[in-house]
Amino acid sequence: MSTALSQPRLISLAAGFTDQVTLPVEETRAIMEELLGSAKSGSVTLQYGTTLGDPILRELTASRLQLLDGNTALSSIATAERMIITNGSQQLLYMVTEALCDPGDIVLVEDPSYFVYLGILQSHGVRTKGVRMQPDGLDLAHLEELLTTLQREKQLHRLKLLYLVSYYQNPTGLTTSFEKKIGALKLLRRFERAAGHTLYLLEDAAYRELRFRGEDVKSALAIKGNHDFGSSNLLQQLLARALGSDLYERHLAVLRNRYAQKAKVTRKALQQHFPPSVRWREPEGGLYFWPRLPHPLTSGTRSRFFHEALRKEVLYVPGELCYADDRDRRKPNNEMRLSFGAASEGNLRAGIERLGQVLQKLLR
Amino acid sequence: MSTALSQPRLISLAAGFTDQVTLPVEETRAIMEELLGSAKSGSVTLQYGTTLGDPILRELTASRLQLLDGNTALSSIATAERMIITNGSQQLLYMVTEALCDPGDIVLVEDPSYFVYLGILQSHGVRTKGVRMQPDGLDLAHLEELLTTLQREKQLHRLKLLYLVSYYQNPTGLTTSFEKKIGALKLLRRFERAAGHTLYLLEDAAYRELRFRGEDVKSALAIKGNHDFGSSNLLQQLLARALGSDLYERHLAVLRNRYAQKAKVTRKALQQHFPPSVRWREPEGGLYFWPRLPHPLTSGTRSRFFHEALRKEVLYVPGELCYADDRDRRKPNNEMRLSFGAASEGNLRAGIERLGQVLQKLLR
Repeated sequence: MSTALSQPRLISLAAGFTDQVTLPVEETRAIMEELLGSAKSGSVTLQYGTTLGDPILRELTASRLQLLDGNTALSSIATAERMIITNGSQQLLYMVTEALCDPGDIVLVEDPSYFVYLGILQSHGVRTKGVRMQPDGLDLAHLEELLTTLQREKQLHRLKLLYLVSYYQNPTGLTTSFEKKIGALKLLRRFERAAGHTLYLLEDAAYRELRFRGEDVKSALAIKGNHDFGSSNLLQQLLARALGSDLYERHLAVLRNRYAQKAKVTRKALQQHFPPSVRWREPEGGLYFWPRLPHPLTSGTRSRFFHEALRKEVLYVPGELCYADDRDRRKPNNEMRLSFGAASEGNLRAGIERLGQVLQKLLR
Repeated sequence: MSTALSQPRLISLAAGFTDQVTLPVEETRAIMEELLGSAKSGSVTLQYGTTLGDPILRELTASRLQLLDGNTALSSIATAERMIITNGSQQLLYMVTEALCDPGDIVLVEDPSYFVYLGILQSHGVRTKGVRMQPDGLDLAHLEELLTTLQREKQLHRLKLLYLVSYYQNPTGLTTSFEKKIGALKLLRRFERAAGHTLYLLEDAAYRELRFRGEDVKSALAIKGNHDFGSSNLLQQLLARALGSDLYERHLAVLRNRYAQKAKVTRKALQQHFPPSVRWREPEGGLYFWPRLPHPLTSGTRSRFFHEALRKEVLYVPGELCYADDRDRRKPNNEMRLSFGAASEGNLRAGIERLGQVLQKLLR
């Protein structure tokens, strides 16, 4: 894999990086100029901040959540006091896991789920069980079945949380409906007495604002100290200025247009080059397509498809990496995550065309 | 404590913050202008970096270590491949502890030591034992005694590392000599067979370059992945530019001059206002003085001295917070850490004068 990545001509549809051309260079420069333009604001910007995060950024984050979910419902929940600014989402995921989970505990994840979080869970010795996905998100009947089984096997006391990437999910691009979030929360509540403790719903809304089609979905809504002395104050001041002006909204519009266009390029290339036996769904936001190969093709790192794709210098994320390591079931091994985040339109077309050529050859 | 901190007129000699007037606002502005001045360098700066850190910054960090310790000895050890860029020193301390220590393990620390690291160790369920300090650092005879006792009590297999803040130590301002570092390493090697594993020396050289008197001391010289996707690329690019030009060296000169001046102001104020029965030592670098009160005065958060100082709106770090939580011995409770980092010269004088008034009153 690292050999492949060092090839300069490799087309990577694997990394979930953002599109290079959408990076707000001029906006960042203008805010930095403002922050560092005077000794007074500059020294506030470069001094240590607080562990929980800049108060103004926390206030603006709370306001944004209230705006997204509707002011009235959230005014007592999405408050600045309950906001925490971390060094990326990964640090928060790490801290929540560390705070709630002991080795041998169980976390329910979507099947498939965000593979980086699966790695965090594994590093904490936490067992994972996958909840099946439907087009509108979590399969609630399967969630209930898993909870019932855990209760019967007297394992419910080890269950700590359900992790949900609820918007344009990584890797599948699927969104969980608001009704299903309510249903999942009700199920968790029902089993809390048997578990003997709170069963948390951890909602990861990373891609929520990268919606380029359809309606927004309400969030379910729902820790930091020894890791560091807080996230870089410089970066927080930068973000607070962007959120406090119209720069954030304007940049979101740029992102949505750009990713909508690249999703369209990806869809057209898939329609043109992939055989109809390969099934996929068009995402309404986010960065990913999640095609499924027909039997008997597989997509894992040891599969012929993966190797032929690499020979043609195209990289994707094998779907099996995104599934819970559950001894009770076999992981699907015929899916792939294609990211249209970082690749250029030309590379999206060329990469999918090459993958299509490999598919035609292997299906012959 | 938090009540005290919210008092606007409070003079804090507690926080180890840096001096507001030394923050390199104009230098940072100039580098940001350069980094964000073109779409090309700007988009590299704002894109994700790598988990281990920016290759150029790692290279420059290795070169700096080689320069400080002498090229020849370190050329094979202080290499870019062995460098890791973290979100502050605290993240590295956290990761090293997590990688090496299990609950119930033992870590040897200086007595007293950096209290934030004591908090990290406590959060990991790690027991600490303090090694006495002498004017030139660690008391090697006491280190040997502790190691011998651990071996006799069959606890040596629980010992994982010795943590050393070797330059202008936080909180005492003491520096451990190079000879003592060699001695400590030899002792650790000698007990490794009995321990059954490597006994690490973790050298925290945070204040090394803040030397304003005397000669530099060679370092002893002696881990990142699931926490985040690496430290902010923007900040790393900024640092790499500063290290790659003469800005870093020039700013160090500014810092050293400024802290030398503030150490002098602190020394004079202590000479003028503290009774001679209060013992302290003048630091050669760093940010701290470490006065010791005469019997029967104590300095803890429940002491009369602490409360009278707060009433006069002066805050310091009680020394007992800086000692290992060792059931086998009583913590010294008559010391205090005075930081001349953030307070203005006027506040240093006023704060120490007020502490002096409390001392005169309590000793009457």
